[in-house]
Amino acid sequence: MAASVAETGTGMKKVAILGGGGMIGQKLARHIAANGLGGQEATLHLHDIGFPPWPTDLPAPEERTGDIAAPAEAEWLAALAPDVIFHLAAVVSGEAEQDFEKGWRVNVDALRRILEALRAAHEASGGRYRPRFVFASSIAVFGPPFPEKIGDDFLCAPQTSYGAQKAIGELMVSDFSRKGFIDGIAIRLPTICVRPGKPNKAASGFFSSIIREPLAGQEAVLPVPDTVRHWHASPRAAVGFLTHAATIDLAALGSRRALNMPGVSCTVVEQIEALRRVAGEAAVARIRREPDPAIMAIVEGWPRDFAPERALALGFRAERDFEEIIRIHIEDELGGAIPG
Amino acid sequence: MAASVAETGTGMKKVAILGGGGMIGQKLARHIAANGLGGQEATLHLHDIGFPPWPTDLPAPEERTGDIAAPAEAEWLAALAPDVIFHLAAVVSGEAEQDFEKGWRVNVDALRRILEALRAAHEASGGRYRPRFVFASSIAVFGPPFPEKIGDDFLCAPQTSYGAQKAIGELMVSDFSRKGFIDGIAIRLPTICVRPGKPNKAASGFFSSIIREPLAGQEAVLPVPDTVRHWHASPRAAVGFLTHAATIDLAALGSRRALNMPGVSCTVVEQIEALRRVAGEAAVARIRREPDPAIMAIVEGWPRDFAPERALALGFRAERDFEEIIRIHIEDELGGAIPG
Repeated sequence: MAASVAETGTGMKKVAILGGGGMIGQKLARHIAANGLGGQEATLHLHDIGFPPWPTDLPAPEERTGDIAAPAEAEWLAALAPDVIFHLAAVVSGEAEQDFEKGWRVNVDALRRILEALRAAHEASGGRYRPRFVFASSIAVFGPPFPEKIGDDFLCAPQTSYGAQKAIGELMVSDFSRKGFIDGIAIRLPTICVRPGKPNKAASGFFSSIIREPLAGQEAVLPVPDTVRHWHASPRAAVGFLTHAATIDLAALGSRRALNMPGVSCTVVEQIEALRRVAGEAAVARIRREPDPAIMAIVEGWPRDFAPERALALGFRAERDFEEIIRIHIEDELGGAIPG
Repeated sequence: MAASVAETGTGMKKVAILGGGGMIGQKLARHIAANGLGGQEATLHLHDIGFPPWPTDLPAPEERTGDIAAPAEAEWLAALAPDVIFHLAAVVSGEAEQDFEKGWRVNVDALRRILEALRAAHEASGGRYRPRFVFASSIAVFGPPFPEKIGDDFLCAPQTSYGAQKAIGELMVSDFSRKGFIDGIAIRLPTICVRPGKPNKAASGFFSSIIREPLAGQEAVLPVPDTVRHWHASPRAAVGFLTHAATIDLAALGSRRALNMPGVSCTVVEQIEALRRVAGEAAVARIRREPDPAIMAIVEGWPRDFAPERALALGFRAERDFEEIIRIHIEDELGGAIPG
């Protein structure tokens, strides 16, 4: 099997981020622009349907706008021949549930076409080209009933089309890797919290908004009981997972190339107590309880805790507790201090 | 959600078997032609790339010849609007490994196109059409390391493209079922043994040939140590699994619609002892040990034992032991007596 170009190359590393205009994609891109990747300088190529403004103090990446499911985009990627490809482009859970065709087209067909284009590039290179391929999967691949902690050999039983599509993506990445066409890994991200920006309609949105809004002096709605337990990691941890996945030796993975990432398991009441310690009673008082049976029913089907032993053994790290997650939000999004 | 036509219809049940020309497909078709399905008479529609002669004493089915991955075949199926669809059509393990593109095209793309055509038919019917869809999956979805017995919540970690494609098929059948477009179930068949017919080049072929050939007075080669343990069921049991899957209420499955089927876990030496009890020392003497490291390496990655609790609770049944598997072969393939 040919060695990965990413492992043997010297000098500049060519890095593509599909979904590079999104929240995690932008954080990842800026981190790599500032720090390189795995101790090497990197040239950055971002793909998405659109991009926010790029910071003027960082070297500008290529920004390519297009529909990731269009054949021309897979051809662009294969012709670019990156050493490392991050695949973050996805139709998210709620939209994939509402627009069944779009979810399958973007989350499955686009990935399949990209992998086929990379296989063709691998073969055209006589087997020398074999990019590191980091696929952002999700704990949405799991469904209840759950054990107390989800272990590394627990089945995928998705409750949404998004989860099914991510599980299918993992199987494709694994098989194309087993055949040696790519050197792939799928990382199952926890719910990313505290998500910066405005409140959105995602069923999981409240996990972030009950922290973000009170810190910003605004009211937030809590639609579920305090006892709800869930699995979290910060945006900074997500960037760490992705860069670590891009640079470690994957031989130890064998043919199980989908990994549960570490995270913080905590209840809503533990989230609120952490907020109280960090920001005081006034912040907590801005959380308004407004039970929503529809959201509660969805959240019932979500994972609550994991024992991510393989990922920990490979050096993946998340936060120690939810208080650290809040402090990272204050550092990374609020300039290190609570407003007001 | 609309009730399944298969559950509410009276009179003739319309049954399609995709892959109806293969070994299991023919046994299933003849069983249904002779016995109906679930206590109802059935009209049979078989699809495959070719067919063996149909027995003259049974009502002749429709036999449609074509490439299951061609769009016209999915359209034919949706226009036919069967009450029950058995999907057995597949490129087998060895061929899917050698011809990567063909495996994905037939084992994944064809199924996806069929499910999309059935979804369109469901929607065109205002939600009334929702066929029972029985997908033949395989224990090839699993990969080592294994627990002593594989339980119902063990992960899919396929070691072959065939296994990956079957696992993807299961996820598609589950998600299309969750959305109510079909009423699907995926059953993971054990290795089918004793397979009738000539020896073939499949790595698993010896499990059948060390029984079949000696019973026919011919020599058979055993390429692995006596201690190899594997998971078997007879062709008759496979037909039973399929018809049971087509007729039971699937509500109890919830969203976990892929089921490990029951089987017989035994070692090669237990197979040979069973042969000795049924056919005597002369038959056993026709087994020639000829170790093959390549086959041994493949077989090392195969499941050895299961605890198929959900399937047993739903009434799926296999043989009690390997001796019963041999006696069924003698009854069904050799006219009830050992030749010679």
